[in-house]
Amino acid sequence: MAVGESLLPPLHAIPGVRLGTASAGIRQAERDDVAVIELTDEAVCAAVFTRNAFCAAPVVLAREHLQSSPRWLLINSGNANAGTGSRGLQDAARSCRALARLVNADLEQILPFSTGVIGEAPPVAKIEAALPSAVNALSESGWERTATAIMTTDTRPKGVSRELTLGGSRVTITGIAKGAGMIHPNMATMLTFIATDLPIQRDALQACLEQAVGQSFNCITVDGDTSTNDACVLMATGRSNAPLVTHQSRHFAEFQTALFEVCKELAEAIIRDGEGATKLIRIHVAGAASEEEAHRVGKTIAHSPLVKTAFFAGDPNWGRILAAVGRSGIDRLDVSGVSLWLGDVCIVRNGEAAPGYDEASGTAAMAADDITVRVQLGRGQAQQTILTCDLSHEYVRINAEYRT
Amino acid sequence: MAVGESLLPPLHAIPGVRLGTASAGIRQAERDDVAVIELTDEAVCAAVFTRNAFCAAPVVLAREHLQSSPRWLLINSGNANAGTGSRGLQDAARSCRALARLVNADLEQILPFSTGVIGEAPPVAKIEAALPSAVNALSESGWERTATAIMTTDTRPKGVSRELTLGGSRVTITGIAKGAGMIHPNMATMLTFIATDLPIQRDALQACLEQAVGQSFNCITVDGDTSTNDACVLMATGRSNAPLVTHQSRHFAEFQTALFEVCKELAEAIIRDGEGATKLIRIHVAGAASEEEAHRVGKTIAHSPLVKTAFFAGDPNWGRILAAVGRSGIDRLDVSGVSLWLGDVCIVRNGEAAPGYDEASGTAAMAADDITVRVQLGRGQAQQTILTCDLSHEYVRINAEYRT
Repeated sequence: MAVGESLLPPLHAIPGVRLGTASAGIRQAERDDVAVIELTDEAVCAAVFTRNAFCAAPVVLAREHLQSSPRWLLINSGNANAGTGSRGLQDAARSCRALARLVNADLEQILPFSTGVIGEAPPVAKIEAALPSAVNALSESGWERTATAIMTTDTRPKGVSRELTLGGSRVTITGIAKGAGMIHPNMATMLTFIATDLPIQRDALQACLEQAVGQSFNCITVDGDTSTNDACVLMATGRSNAPLVTHQSRHFAEFQTALFEVCKELAEAIIRDGEGATKLIRIHVAGAASEEEAHRVGKTIAHSPLVKTAFFAGDPNWGRILAAVGRSGIDRLDVSGVSLWLGDVCIVRNGEAAPGYDEASGTAAMAADDITVRVQLGRGQAQQTILTCDLSHEYVRINAEYRT
Repeated sequence: MAVGESLLPPLHAIPGVRLGTASAGIRQAERDDVAVIELTDEAVCAAVFTRNAFCAAPVVLAREHLQSSPRWLLINSGNANAGTGSRGLQDAARSCRALARLVNADLEQILPFSTGVIGEAPPVAKIEAALPSAVNALSESGWERTATAIMTTDTRPKGVSRELTLGGSRVTITGIAKGAGMIHPNMATMLTFIATDLPIQRDALQACLEQAVGQSFNCITVDGDTSTNDACVLMATGRSNAPLVTHQSRHFAEFQTALFEVCKELAEAIIRDGEGATKLIRIHVAGAASEEEAHRVGKTIAHSPLVKTAFFAGDPNWGRILAAVGRSGIDRLDVSGVSLWLGDVCIVRNGEAAPGYDEASGTAAMAADDITVRVQLGRGQAQQTILTCDLSHEYVRINAEYRT
């Protein structure tokens, strides 16, 4: 299940980035589940990772190797290599070493990423055996195949491309993402790989990424569960003729805006493909005393299973939304200042049912696939938008059956 | 659905407490949905209420009236009278006034309680019309019928009695509770009414209640949603011949222990009847640096939909439990110090799969109706036990259909 139609848009090549995939048969035969990404020597890399204390072995290694000059990304789906202790670290390093030998690189130039079942030892031999095919397949047009190879419970690949002109030269950004469950990113998302040909300093690149992630991937939730393997990588090859971007340069903000759009679109694609999702719910909290407060109210609503099942049922059960606002821990909340809209329908005005509201209009607003909930707290000017999906029978089925 | 068999045990009468029920037809005809509890003039009352900022009108009123000397409790199920603004407050007062007239009491002597759908105006006329029958039915043996009248999505009534001997005299405690969804009590539970014939000072009674609730109702969760209507009332009639209990008296601790057992048993009954529950999950977190930390880890596991669906499936997917521990926000958690048991089976030792663990023994441990998860954090001596239930198809069905 997923919300709305979604064909993968054309994903533009990024000069200096080649991608190849292969099948290692990690959980299923006859599907590609290993991907290799090669970067040109001049490329710079930025990344953010999960803050889950039980972060996966590849996250530990990738964080370390990021300090060198990464030239290769090695990704597998089907096995997360998380909760695997020191043995897991050795396994991640073994896979990296196999790729390093194959492409004549240093171990430190390789960033590993894994996604899939937690707690099982990764099938390193299978991954090693698939590497030559993946390297042989390297191509600048490998984005679509890679977007598919990194999927787990995703029902469709997710990707987006943007082109902009900076200093008279064309700059391209292309990104792919995977993720459908265990989605409550904290300073990162599930696996996301974005590349651009912009010439940009590494510090500026990292700053751009962190800002974009904070307002995109960190504002989505499927189930409130932060993954052990979240990672978002931004690679810049410098092959565009645009001038070098630094923190101070006037093109910084333009690139930042375009990158933010890419991240927002990928984040929304993850929610549209949220496990069992039948509806996309956009929770816009305004009138908060601070952005943190708006974020907290939005997340409390987004995490409420009662709110999520009401959306699945198309039931305008606004009492559940108010109850979530009320328990979100906002200091001295004056409930008589709170108003609530479903789509364009004002349902609650000043803490109680809005004058003239009738259930039929609420039900009509709930019938859409994409629903916006607007909450006005009446305390200040800060606002925040959180994306989530509904909680359906299909969610329970997927997660009760995932390993069996 | 509910976990295990559960016949309501015999509920002993409390001298000085009479209960009566009647049908007001609030949501369903032909079931009692209004209850009246009468207290003897000498009774003292303690209570704790929800901390949800959107607390219901009857909560506001009951909190106020508790400062007087309450003699009557008026309870209805089917309508929560929450999110109803100033009109809701007037409605709650109107119902109280109708009872006050009928029994010749002051408005302030009446504590109102409501539970049911949020956001709809309560049918005050129907409630008023049912009051004479409820008052006519008053009887010391009305506990069972009241336990049933206060139910909403509960599948069975919940009650417990305890007898103890204090200073050579018999003392009885009887309590009833309702609640199956929107269960994540915060300083109170869903509706719980407990009475004793113990002579006890009001301050001591309130202290006993708060301590018992902190370790019972505040340690359970079905869905993480804190209700707008939570209330737990403890009434003491003083009719037992036991000596008067104060903070200083040696019987304080004995009564406290017995009361705690009653609260724990009622709290467990709520979880066993959790919406769609097929399994009771006891999460025992030990080795924490503080009780607050143990509580936080336990609640994070208990709130994880991925953990809850794995329990529904009987899948020993311990990676989901570790991921929840890892995202619970514990400062500087050393994951290599964490161990995990399902029942008696050690699954994780020092942050990775325990030596010799095989999935068959994990699956066997998951087959029970009552499952204990033990987490050892290896950071200190503090511990805490959190109760929750699994997340099933039935949960989604109940909450997608509740109003329709």
